[in-house]
Amino acid sequence: MIKKIINNLITILLFSVTIVNGQNKLSDRYNLMPWPKEIQENTNKVYINEEVTVSVNSKEGRVYDATTKFIRRLTNRTGVFINEGFPFLNKNNATIKITFNKVAEVQLNVDESYEVKVTENQVEVFAKTDIGALRGLETVLQLITYNENSFYIEGVTIKDSPRFVWRGLMIDVARHYQPLSVLKRNLDAMASMKMNVFHWHLSDDQGFRVESKVFPKLHQLGSDKQYYTHDNIKEIVSYANKLGIRVVPEIDVPGHATAILTAYPELGSKKGYDYKIERFSGVFHPTLNPINPEVYVFLDKLFAELTPLFPDHYFHIGGDENEGKHWDENYEIQKFKKKEGLNSNHDLQTFFNIKLQDILKKYNKRLMGWDEIMTKDMPKTAIIHSWRGVNEGFKNGTLSEAVKNGYQAVLSNDYYIDRMQSVEHHYLFDPLGNEKFTKEEEKRVLGGEVTMWSELVTPLTIDSRIWPRTAAIAERFWSVKEVKNLENMRKRLVKVTLQLEELGISHYKNRDVILRNIAKCNAISSLKVLTGIYEPLKIYTRNKGGTEYKSFSPFTLFADACFSDAIDAYNFKKTMNSFIKTPSESKKKKLKSYFNKWVEGYSDFIKLPPNPNTSLIKNHYEKLNELSLICIEVLNGKKITNKVKNEVNMCVKVLKLPLVDTELVILPVIKKFLNE
Amino acid sequence: MIKKIINNLITILLFSVTIVNGQNKLSDRYNLMPWPKEIQENTNKVYINEEVTVSVNSKEGRVYDATTKFIRRLTNRTGVFINEGFPFLNKNNATIKITFNKVAEVQLNVDESYEVKVTENQVEVFAKTDIGALRGLETVLQLITYNENSFYIEGVTIKDSPRFVWRGLMIDVARHYQPLSVLKRNLDAMASMKMNVFHWHLSDDQGFRVESKVFPKLHQLGSDKQYYTHDNIKEIVSYANKLGIRVVPEIDVPGHATAILTAYPELGSKKGYDYKIERFSGVFHPTLNPINPEVYVFLDKLFAELTPLFPDHYFHIGGDENEGKHWDENYEIQKFKKKEGLNSNHDLQTFFNIKLQDILKKYNKRLMGWDEIMTKDMPKTAIIHSWRGVNEGFKNGTLSEAVKNGYQAVLSNDYYIDRMQSVEHHYLFDPLGNEKFTKEEEKRVLGGEVTMWSELVTPLTIDSRIWPRTAAIAERFWSVKEVKNLENMRKRLVKVTLQLEELGISHYKNRDVILRNIAKCNAISSLKVLTGIYEPLKIYTRNKGGTEYKSFSPFTLFADACFSDAIDAYNFKKTMNSFIKTPSESKKKKLKSYFNKWVEGYSDFIKLPPNPNTSLIKNHYEKLNELSLICIEVLNGKKITNKVKNEVNMCVKVLKLPLVDTELVILPVIKKFLNE
Repeated sequence: MIKKIINNLITILLFSVTIVNGQNKLSDRYNLMPWPKEIQENTNKVYINEEVTVSVNSKEGRVYDATTKFIRRLTNRTGVFINEGFPFLNKNNATIKITFNKVAEVQLNVDESYEVKVTENQVEVFAKTDIGALRGLETVLQLITYNENSFYIEGVTIKDSPRFVWRGLMIDVARHYQPLSVLKRNLDAMASMKMNVFHWHLSDDQGFRVESKVFPKLHQLGSDKQYYTHDNIKEIVSYANKLGIRVVPEIDVPGHATAILTAYPELGSKKGYDYKIERFSGVFHPTLNPINPEVYVFLDKLFAELTPLFPDHYFHIGGDENEGKHWDENYEIQKFKKKEGLNSNHDLQTFFNIKLQDILKKYNKRLMGWDEIMTKDMPKTAIIHSWRGVNEGFKNGTLSEAVKNGYQAVLSNDYYIDRMQSVEHHYLFDPLGNEKFTKEEEKRVLGGEVTMWSELVTPLTIDSRIWPRTAAIAERFWSVKEVKNLENMRKRLVKVTLQLEELGISHYKNRDVILRNIAKCNAISSLKVLTGIYEPLKIYTRNKGGTEYKSFSPFTLFADACFSDAIDAYNFKKTMNSFIKTPSESKKKKLKSYFNKWVEGYSDFIKLPPNPNTSLIKNHYEKLNELSLICIEVLNGKKITNKVKNEVNMCVKVLKLPLVDTELVILPVIKKFLNE
Repeated sequence: MIKKIINNLITILLFSVTIVNGQNKLSDRYNLMPWPKEIQENTNKVYINEEVTVSVNSKEGRVYDATTKFIRRLTNRTGVFINEGFPFLNKNNATIKITFNKVAEVQLNVDESYEVKVTENQVEVFAKTDIGALRGLETVLQLITYNENSFYIEGVTIKDSPRFVWRGLMIDVARHYQPLSVLKRNLDAMASMKMNVFHWHLSDDQGFRVESKVFPKLHQLGSDKQYYTHDNIKEIVSYANKLGIRVVPEIDVPGHATAILTAYPELGSKKGYDYKIERFSGVFHPTLNPINPEVYVFLDKLFAELTPLFPDHYFHIGGDENEGKHWDENYEIQKFKKKEGLNSNHDLQTFFNIKLQDILKKYNKRLMGWDEIMTKDMPKTAIIHSWRGVNEGFKNGTLSEAVKNGYQAVLSNDYYIDRMQSVEHHYLFDPLGNEKFTKEEEKRVLGGEVTMWSELVTPLTIDSRIWPRTAAIAERFWSVKEVKNLENMRKRLVKVTLQLEELGISHYKNRDVILRNIAKCNAISSLKVLTGIYEPLKIYTRNKGGTEYKSFSPFTLFADACFSDAIDAYNFKKTMNSFIKTPSESKKKKLKSYFNKWVEGYSDFIKLPPNPNTSLIKNHYEKLNELSLICIEVLNGKKITNKVKNEVNMCVKVLKLPLVDTELVILPVIKKFLNE
């Protein structure tokens, strides 16, 4: 026995490395995301076999049920027939043993720290709170690996806690309603990435998605019958709570209010205006009338009804993108502004916001709003949700402005995943940016939120827009600043992306559904090949200023089957750039295999029975085929004659055009290769 | 104008065929399922373009919302940007115009007939009831076809109505709980196949899945927290109602009652027995005590609580597989039987059932039960649900017995899709069998029900077990008896199977999820090749009498990724059998391409990084590869020497063994080819 202990000790001494802050070679070995604060490796392995038992130290709180789910995921991931499908209570020699000190409330600043310790025969998870224990369980699942014959949990000791306390995902359910099942699977996925805030954008021009018993016309006339009942809301809030996730609701006012005004036009700023649920995307004029006392009576009663459904202390009132056109057009409003000495519509909106803040205070809620709410008179108790940055003309972003002005703030600028930008773009953007903050200012940066605006997503496609990029952003919010090695993140993201499927995330599987619908048959390999190199048009070019897509337009197009960070494109570009710099036979071979893939893809594609949707793709694919054949010849040493140049030009002319709202992202590097 | 009418008339005269009862060459052309009663073709084509409008004649009832959904499906299927996303009211020149006479109640014998008429510029749907109109809308969606440039609706006139009034699908949510989203998508799919009864098997040994406010321990102790709240039930019943689908609940008593007795052991037949939610499958002994008056008080209160949630007039009390072991072991029960002159346990169960029938009558429900409830004293008002046939020792099945005895009956025997038999098997089985019934008896056959027992299915796999076979059975229930051409059904089923994806049915997409989980990467093509020729073990051999799988066992195995009617197997067998009979070069070529597919599959497979689950498959794949290479050589003219014979034997020895609970269904025909 003593010998064994000594042996273990020696093992530990030999193999342990110093505690690691941030990222090092370990992150090549362990597929953890977000990367933990401290990790130390040892040579232990705990095998997953039918004898595995799991123990919790209390049935109170969230851990018992979470552990039952944990066992199901362990079983389904490995295929191992575990004898004991439910956790034991205080079983000391359990294979996986979870201990926490107290049941916590889901709220800002809750302790989420945890430790995982893999010893010779046991995996131990310790946490101060049950919520911390949940975070630890997710880490244990990520530690499962395998060889040819066994699954096992790798030997490590981890001490972990988050960098930011606010790590959110906003889902807009107004532009496209999302059923509970979509929200639940995304909450599960959030929890697997240790995110802790679900910001529920419940109302906008395109829909008011909450049942109101006090103002029933809101859901009756403002939602096309697609809304959440009170029970639905309780279900989601409770589901999130069990995962240690706060739910912050948003009712967007005074702008983005077309749906509200469709139900109650008398609250609008423009008399006689024909308010109708908006079908397009963009910024619209319908706005609540800030000088009508009935508006405040309405909001007071509405908030009185809704706030008890959302136990979180924060309440988001939107407040963005009110251009004030209907205010300018209303003589009474202009008169009021003059009388009250309100110089601008912004000042008038602050007048409105302060009234809202007073109402919310009655219901014990702190007001949060998009950064437009930040004006000189706005009390510092408001939370500023920063969405505007360089693109919107703010050199340092509005977050910096907010915290320097004394507000607490949450950052979403540059986490706008609906813009379809690369994972790299979002991952490298630090919530603190390059700003110099004082310690106090830094503390006022609560964290960040990924925003999933839903103009162009439906339940079929939303997951492929949120994931996997949000996993990388979740790491940005949780891990220390120094964790930012792109290559390593990408490598880990590949596995995480696959594991998200076990929670029902449908990014991969629904891509294939869309492709089958396009092909009208099962033979989709040639189309799948294309999704490897085409990406949806970025930064709002797809919807041409909101004029192309209505909320009921089809979202089953080729663009909907494509992702950002198209996988072949990324690898091809890397190889090609490297080849252009320093050519080699192995790189040449790799490049040829890509070109051949597209040539073969085309030959499969033309065998498909044609239909209107494959017909849209045909011309592009034909030119991609031609260009690939040319590139193969050039790689084989053929000279680029004028004739070849002409052929290339003909191809490029077609290929640079959008293909059903996507772009061929490898075209620039191919042009570079061909000196075009 | 007159000329045009005359032209149309000529067109109609030239191209119309006589009204068709059953099936003829038209079923090769139109992809309708279930096949309609009468169909007449014309040369009209109504194009789907952005100008399409849809009109309904009333906002009352189910049609307006169903038509909105119809427009979404039309749009998403075709990718056409339709300008008008919502139905008009009474727009005479609408492209698609729906007219119905009255709003109906969802109940047995409701009129579901409809007509579809495609004229030069318009598609008209007429129905007596709104439910009939829903059936017609599904037909219109199936009439959408395309050429290279356009989608259009084919020119036909259809008059249609169902053969049987009871066309059901039972889903067992006790063995594996199914979330609302699973039920909803299956209800949508049922409606698309014109099915009209959802039989909800809510309680069994493995779980009691309904919240009870009167007996809260039922869901608290009997469900592992996986149950439907009253609101959930209302939601599903309302969802089904909107689709014209009745919901018949089942609370299985007095047997299959372990979950109930886990909550209320005092109601059991065996004192001191340790009732615990069952984790295995099979027939178990826990049984309500029929001589305990408290049992009837309990059931009366429970039914008083539950019956209002289910507006349908029928209530299923199960009643199956009570072997009476605990009754035999209870002295008081034996004494009671003697006293009351009840000769058998069956008689005692009838005594129990009659009491139940009286209770249900109070709540205005007709009792329905599995065929064991049929004993000489059972009143003829009970509905007999026939599940036992030849396999269970009933030569003509219990349905025949029931209707000849004067009962109304519904058939499930031979529609047990959990047995994983072929679509052919179920499709060719007529509810009336080969029995000679009188007109009166025939009328008592209400229809049939597909049964999805869930011992071996989870939310991940249930769709691939239900569909597409249930679509073929739905045709059996709806279409006239003469529609039974297998080849033609298969051809139509291919398209229907694909279209089910637009309703969220996950058969294809979740197969790939499972394969990715097995491969631990995206490169699943080699595994997918195998799913084309392996099928899950059939007729309860997979679970070895209920001893292998517990409810929490993994259902992410290779068997769970395989379907019945493996597509390559079917085509290969056909070609091979035909080749053996009359060889030809083209058949040889086809066969070789199959063998090459498996050889290439193997070469891809061995490139996968090995893990415990791919390791399980390796040996089989290796032998399949060897056998395929031998077969190619034999096709190329090589003699079958003793050495070859030995090699074949070695392969067959491995390949005849189950592979992770599947079987290689092409093995017999290969053996035949090689004279093994």
